[in-house]
Amino acid sequence: MNELFGREVYFKCENLQKVGAFKVRGALNALLSLPASSGDVVTHSSGNHGAALAWAARKLGKKAYVICPTNASRFKRDAIERYGGILVDCGPAIAQRETALQSFLQERAATFVPPYDHADIIAGQGTATLELIEDVPQLREVWVPIGGGGLASGAVIAAGGRCDVVGCEPELARDAHDSLAAGRLLPSLPPTSIADGLLASLGQLNFEILRTAHVPVRLVSEDEIRDATVLIWRVLKIVIEPSSAVPVAAALKDDRSTDDPIAIILSGGNVEPKLSV
Amino acid sequence: MNELFGREVYFKCENLQKVGAFKVRGALNALLSLPASSGDVVTHSSGNHGAALAWAARKLGKKAYVICPTNASRFKRDAIERYGGILVDCGPAIAQRETALQSFLQERAATFVPPYDHADIIAGQGTATLELIEDVPQLREVWVPIGGGGLASGAVIAAGGRCDVVGCEPELARDAHDSLAAGRLLPSLPPTSIADGLLASLGQLNFEILRTAHVPVRLVSEDEIRDATVLIWRVLKIVIEPSSAVPVAAALKDDRSTDDPIAIILSGGNVEPKLSV
Repeated sequence: MNELFGREVYFKCENLQKVGAFKVRGALNALLSLPASSGDVVTHSSGNHGAALAWAARKLGKKAYVICPTNASRFKRDAIERYGGILVDCGPAIAQRETALQSFLQERAATFVPPYDHADIIAGQGTATLELIEDVPQLREVWVPIGGGGLASGAVIAAGGRCDVVGCEPELARDAHDSLAAGRLLPSLPPTSIADGLLASLGQLNFEILRTAHVPVRLVSEDEIRDATVLIWRVLKIVIEPSSAVPVAAALKDDRSTDDPIAIILSGGNVEPKLSV
Repeated sequence: MNELFGREVYFKCENLQKVGAFKVRGALNALLSLPASSGDVVTHSSGNHGAALAWAARKLGKKAYVICPTNASRFKRDAIERYGGILVDCGPAIAQRETALQSFLQERAATFVPPYDHADIIAGQGTATLELIEDVPQLREVWVPIGGGGLASGAVIAAGGRCDVVGCEPELARDAHDSLAAGRLLPSLPPTSIADGLLASLGQLNFEILRTAHVPVRLVSEDEIRDATVLIWRVLKIVIEPSSAVPVAAALKDDRSTDDPIAIILSGGNVEPKLSV
């Protein structure tokens, strides 16, 4: 891998994390930060955050309702139920998730735990970068995928200037890139990337943190994402989902000549590769 | 995984080993056991042993020639070359490998390093089980796939009676099962299993070791192998090749009620899953 990347590279394997994604960090931190009197929880999620909230809620004896687009990955919908979450169907558009959430909250007493646009979530996701920096103090850059921006903004906070954060997005879901370039949150186009964990729109708080830290955002094509996914499977022998391959693809084509070590956060492994032989 | 198997289960992840398979243990031990004056080496292999010998030979400044069936996995043929091995084509039948080897040895000065039927290879492969027993002293059984029998016979020697060895084979490549039942080495039928690392015929020395230790051999179907392969990918988030899934499949359907912990050796990860989304 060091040869392929032209520098020393470390991987933070959040695909091997509980529920197979970094999302469990933020979900658990958010639940542990709720008042003791709070009851059941609800969120909207296309997958990993929902599974993470279900897992964390079960640990703490709460019910978790997950408003989930019917077109979300079957693999991820199944995981939400396997961890004890209760699926509530909604349409694929972000606006439909919001509407479904408002209807739900009018009918039931539950605390909304947002997927990324919340300080407790951001703080939880930041622990991945905190561990990285503790493990590899000489790290120069942490490369992370950006969906809603929880992982990236958490990385900025956790790094605290000790190393740079490089954000990465699919060209087909580039709202963070465009919002940061414009200096204001731009509405997300209906995104279609294979990186199904990165289809959310950048959150407001996440945007402010990334903008203040001048985080650059690198873009990669769908083919680059596919190739990087399979590369990790083949060389590291670990399963990552396409969203995790976005910073891998971006770092692979980074042509700055430097010997500084970098780290890539492999955000999750919730995908089902096919056995073709 | 403990829930799925109904008992405590440990995995020895030889898919994460150098060259992605346990084979590097035997190859390196065999090369290090050669006289200092010995030169280049040759073997026949459908894949992982060839890659392992190439890797080990390069470490020691030797050339490695690998007689390899032209119908071997493209993935494994590429790996042999990537590690610096020199491919020598032969036909798919075991007899054709032997003929090609004899022709090669008449033309060139090289030392034959057999893939499994040799004490130094068996001793090397046994170190996987030695490490397992050191890590998990309360282990009751080690489940291993059987191809030529190097890993299984090494496990018997390394276990030294401290835990049992359970061998596992595809129903479509059951020569070890049938040979041990008959009490004599039976000729291998042309095997066709998806577990392409287990198509070799049981070796003579391997047979003697397994027979003396009364090693049982469990059989699994092709569908069971496929399901177990994908199960490991999905739950453990690591890439194993179908050969590694043979003992997984066998242990999954083992219905003895016992709480004793077992270990499964995941023999290799040299396969290329497909990204289907």
